[in-house]
Formats: sequence, structure tokens, C-alpha cells
Amino acid sequence: MKLFTALLVALAFMSSSIQANEANTMARQTTVSRADIAAVAPALDKYTQERLLGEVWKRPGLSARDRSIVTVAALIARNQMIELPYYLNVALDNGVKPSEISEIITHLAFYSGWPNAMSAVAVAKDVFAARNVSTDQLSPTSGSLPLDEAAEADRATRVGQQFGAAFPGIVQYTTDILFRDLWLRPGLAPKDRSLVTVAALIATGQVAQMPYHLNRAMDNGLTQEQAGEVITHLAFYVGWPNAFSAMPVAKDVFEKRAKSSH
Amino acid sequence: MKLFTALLVALAFMSSSIQANEANTMARQTTVSRADIAAVAPALDKYTQERLLGEVWKRPGLSARDRSIVTVAALIARNQMIELPYYLNVALDNGVKPSEISEIITHLAFYSGWPNAMSAVAVAKDVFAARNVSTDQLSPTSGSLPLDEAAEADRATRVGQQFGAAFPGIVQYTTDILFRDLWLRPGLAPKDRSLVTVAALIATGQVAQMPYHLNRAMDNGLTQEQAGEVITHLAFYVGWPNAFSAMPVAKDVFEKRAKSSH
Amino acid sequence: MKLFTALLVALAFMSSSIQANEANTMARQTTVSRADIAAVAPALDKYTQERLLGEVWKRPGLSARDRSIVTVAALIARNQMIELPYYLNVALDNGVKPSEISEIITHLAFYSGWPNAMSAVAVAKDVFAARNVSTDQLSPTSGSLPLDEAAEADRATRVGQQFGAAFPGIVQYTTDILFRDLWLRPGLAPKDRSLVTVAALIATGQVAQMPYHLNRAMDNGLTQEQAGEVITHLAFYVGWPNAFSAMPVAKDVFEKRAKSSH
Repeated sequence: MKLFTALLVALAFMSSSIQANEANTMARQTTVSRADIAAVAPALDKYTQERLLGEVWKRPGLSARDRSIVTVAALIARNQMIELPYYLNVALDNGVKPSEISEIITHLAFYSGWPNAMSAVAVAKDVFAARNVSTDQLSPTSGSLPLDEAAEADRATRVGQQFGAAFPGIVQYTTDILFRDLWLRPGLAPKDRSLVTVAALIATGQVAQMPYHLNRAMDNGLTQEQAGEVITHLAFYVGWPNAFSAMPVAKDVFEKRAKSSH
Repeated sequence: MKLFTALLVALAFMSSSIQANEANTMARQTTVSRADIAAVAPALDKYTQERLLGEVWKRPGLSARDRSIVTVAALIARNQMIELPYYLNVALDNGVKPSEISEIITHLAFYSGWPNAMSAVAVAKDVFAARNVSTDQLSPTSGSLPLDEAAEADRATRVGQQFGAAFPGIVQYTTDILFRDLWLRPGLAPKDRSLVTVAALIATGQVAQMPYHLNRAMDNGLTQEQAGEVITHLAFYVGWPNAFSAMPVAKDVFEKRAKSSH
Repeated sequence: MKLFTALLVALAFMSSSIQANEANTMARQTTVSRADIAAVAPALDKYTQERLLGEVWKRPGLSARDRSIVTVAALIARNQMIELPYYLNVALDNGVKPSEISEIITHLAFYSGWPNAMSAVAVAKDVFAARNVSTDQLSPTSGSLPLDEAAEADRATRVGQQFGAAFPGIVQYTTDILFRDLWLRPGLAPKDRSLVTVAALIATGQVAQMPYHLNRAMDNGLTQEQAGEVITHLAFYVGWPNAFSAMPVAKDVFEKRAKSSH
């Protein structure tokens, strides 16, 4: 029976080593452990614990929930999936609802591109499954918030005059799908939708669209202090240069709003 | 013999579960299923089916073949490999030849960077293998289209005067490798090569080089309507902000060409 | 005993095929082989061998060590992990120390974003393990180079006046963590730290911060010829458009320094 035993041991060993390998693969595809960081860059581990997790996330100017939304949006906008499982769980732990995660991904399909949303779907699927999130917890595909018709007509006229003749396709879709459909979906509050959009723009260095969307965010209730904290928070997640490119643009928006409110 | 049977069953089960795991890994690394999208973001599934696949791809201003080239170029330029197997197959189904895929990847090594091309090679290798594409279906490493010597001399002089003294290396390579070699390779029509270049620039928000390359594309036969459709199409694949950053630049090119043709 | 033999053979076969699959997965996650390139794009293989490896890396204006640092920085800045194992090994072979790799990753956490650094940690961990790099070969988490107090006070005053009121968080962190801590870490020479920063900015098209950091790099000992070679080298790794966007900015820095030195 020795051979039988040997075979069984071999099978058991192989089985567990396969599982270990799978686990390793999952871990590598998803989250870097603190031990990994310490083994490669002890200083980075120190900055992560003391500064990023120990200080930045606890700063009073922006709630942990909003920091979670901003972080998840930045990761999806930059297509960085290795940390997304961890931060999707952080977001859900901080009170972001599964239906809001679902809307954030849908929103970023338009603002970051379909492939970014598809990558996020692949990650979110596993996170939702592990937390037993069912489809009925997600927002329905239809339903609509009220629209500020005057403001939207103004925007559509302005964009139409500038680009309607040369780019009729995207101009029409911008009105029909984005501003008369996506932005009105009730599953994500307009302020949160703005937060996602502004975070995605800062994360990818796309400052040209920032004045419009930062104004819209502040119209939707984002305070100047919160906007400043969004940039401070994102500096750690999208790099100092992107934050410093966003700062003069944001400052200009702040100053123009201060003048026009007098 | 029961133990033998149990062992064989165990072996068979392990073997199939290994295969299933490999299949899952492949699937996760490559394409997101429609069921995955519906499970995470039902609204996104609806937009994908009704708008992106149901409308955008069928718009008359740009052929399905050209939309495929633009989409593949954008994915490679942004290093987004999860959707690339699907869209390489779409491209081949829409009449893009394997030799043209090969040239697109080679072209983007220079316009998006070597690592993007290497990632694309890893994906294309499997797609080619699954379709039994053999090496003799690819274009040869040499051979040359005719060169517009006057236009190239003009370009080289202009760039040489501006940058030759400070950056002799890249200026020489731009002439020798790019414009007197890569662009003359017969495996991809100049209009398609321009389409790839313009799509990559839009996809990565690099509008500074757009005037030169959009003019070149239109010199190579791209119509204004097609250029407009490229931007509309790419809005979905690279995000609205990149499309909106490209629009004023493209509009300016259109207007200057309209004036100079009078 | 035939069944036993068959089982043992089956086990041995499965075991080796599992290992082969793991090897394939690793290879796909890490490096594209020369055979893969030749099978998909023979012309790209030719350019890689004759031009990139055969010429560019051997150009005299920049050492192989510095080219390695620039390449690794660009890959991390663009979050392109498929080629990173190969180029980390190239860097170590060219004399970059493990402690310097560790510092490069820590530095880029701030200049490219935490998720880029985390992805790099996951790759570097395996490279370090394969070369038996132990934690005591990495640089300590504290210790400090001397600070040019006058220059730093000048920078802090300038940034504080422009952004301190609107963005107190990031302005404080920029002083406390970046310029009075990270940049003074002795594990990476200031010239190398500048090289990493400038490479990351060029790699991601972030030219707005280039004047400050290219000047700092040249203050730290980078020559104009070396800066030109950095851009030529990076053209191949981050694409021609990013190189051409960096060139006018770098040329302007060169000219202003030439004037001010008279």
C-alpha cells in the first residue's frame, strides 16, 4: 500500500500546490501585500503606513466615502486594476453602495472609455460575488432625475455652434446619451457623478475639460475646500505632476466663481 | 480496486478543473462576457448593445474595416490588452489582413512605444495561432512604396533646423527609420497608416502632433467626414474628454485646408 | 502494476504540464520572446535587433546604466509591467544597485502615483527573489543628504504664494515629504533622481513640470548632450509623439541656461 499512500500524498500535495499557485496568481493580479512592499521598498512601506493611510485618508476636508469614490474613479480612469479590488472593498466598507459602484463604472465608460469600464467590470464582478451582491441591488437601466432644461439648452447650443457642423455624431450623442440620459440616472447623485468626472480628468491630465466639470461639480454642491482635498488626495494616487497641472486650472475656477458671486 | 478508481476520478477531476481554471484565467485576461457586464452594470450592457454595437459601428461615415483599424490602434496606444483579442478578431472578420495587423503593431512601436507593441505581439500571437495565420501571410521586412522626395525634404529641413543641433539622434532616426523606411513599407496603405497614427494621437490626448498627421491623413485620402466619424467612434473607446480635446484641433485643420483650397 | 505505472506517468505528465502552463503564464505576464515578435511582426523584430538593441543602447551620449534607469522609470510611469522584469534585470546587470531600484520605485510612487509603484513592487519582488537580493541590501528608511536651504526656501515661497491658500494640503506635503525628505534620501544620487523624474514626465507627456525638473537635473549634473540622448532613447520606449512634445520644452531650457551663463 505504500505506493497508494505515495500517490495520495502526491495528489494531495499537487492539489494544495495548485491552489497555492492560484492564490498567488490571484494575489499578484489583485493586491500587493504589505510584506511585498517592505521586501522591495521599506521606505515606501513607511510612507504608505504613516502618510497615505495614517494621514491623508483621515484629513477632515473630505469624507472617507468621497475619498473612496475619487480613488476608485482614478484607478479606473488610468486602467490600473492591480489595486482596484482592494479599493472597491474600501469603498463598499466606507458606505458607497454596490449600485453606486455600478453607476461609477457605467459613467466612466463614457468619460474614460469602454475598455476601462470593461476592465473594471471584470474586477467588480469578483468583488460583488465575494460580498454576495445580487443584481437587484444594482440600479435599474432606466429612470431619470429632473433636468435643468435652460442650462442644458445653453450647453447644447454652445457646443452645437462650435462643433455641430464638423462633428455631428459626437455632438448628438453628447446631448442624447450623456446630458439627457447618463447624467440623469438616479443611481448616483449628481455631486458624486461630478466627483467621478473631475477625478478622472485630474487622473489623466485632461485639464482642458476641467473648468466646465469643476464648475458643474461646485454647482452640484462640491465645496472649494473639498475640491482642494480631492487634488491633495489624488496627488498620491495619480502622481504629483497631474495634481500640479490641475491646481492652476482649479484656482482659476475658484477665483472666477468668487468674483461672479459678488 | 476502489482506491484506483477513486484516484483516477480524482485525477480526471483535477485535470478538468485545471483546464477550467486555465480557461477562466484566459477569459479574465482577454474578454469580458456580456453576462459579466450585466451582472455588474446592467445600464452599461444596455448602452453597449443599443448604442455602441447597435448604432455607432453601423454609422455610414466610416467603414466597419476602418472602425476596426481605429479601435485596434486605440487599444494598443493605450496598452489596454483585455479587449484586444476580441477586436483583433473583429478586425480580421471585417477584412483587415493579418499582414496589416502586423504592420499596425510595428507602426505603433514607433508612435506609441515599444512596450505597447510588445504587449500587442503577445495578444496577436494567440489570435493568429487560433486562426492558423502563418508567417508567410505577413508582409516581408523590406520593400518600399515611392517617396514624395520634395515633401520629405521639406519636412526634414524644417525639423532639422528646429531640433537638429540639440537632438541629433532622434532627428536622424525620424528621417532614416520613420519617413524613409517605416512609412514606405508596402504592407499597410499610407491612408491606413495615417488612420492608425491619428487614432493613437487622439487616444492618448497627444494633440500637439495632430495638425501634421491629420493633414497627412487627408493628403492620403481621408475625408473630413471620415475624420469626424473617427473622433465620434473613438469617443466611446478612449473617452469623451480625449474626443473633445481633438475636436478644436481637427476643426482648425479642416478650416485651414478649406481656405487654402480656394 | 500497469495501472500504478499509468497513474505515476499520468501524475508526472500532469505535474510537468502544470509547470509548463505556469511557465507560459509567467512568460506571458512578463516578457515577450524574440520568436513571438518574429511570428507576429518580422519587421518589428528586425527594428528591435538592428536599431533599438543594436544601435540606440550603444550610442555614446548616455551610459547603459543611465539608459537602464530611464527605461525602467518610463515603464513604471506608464504602468507597463510586461517588459519590466526584463528591464529590471538589464538595469541590475548594468550596475544599477537593488537599493537604487528600490528608491526609484519609492520616488515614482510620488511622481507617477501609488498604484504604479505597487505594480512595480509586485514585479521587482520576483526579480529580487530570483537574484537572492535580501532586505539588508536595500537602503534604510531614514538618513538624509544635505539640503540647499536657500533654493528650497525660494521654491517653497513661490509655490506657497501661488497655491498655499487654495491647496494647503498638497503644498505642505510637497515641502515636508518631497523636498525635505524624499529628495534627500541617500539611496539614490540626486542626478539619478532627476533622471527618473524627467523620464517619467516625458513618458507621460507631462511637459508642464519639465522646465523645473530639467533645470534641476542639469543643476544636478545632467549635461545637455545626455538630456538629448534621454529623449532620443525614450522615443523608442514611449513613442515619437511624447519625444517630440518634450523637445521644444527642453530646447527652451537649454537656450535659457546658455543665456544666463553668459
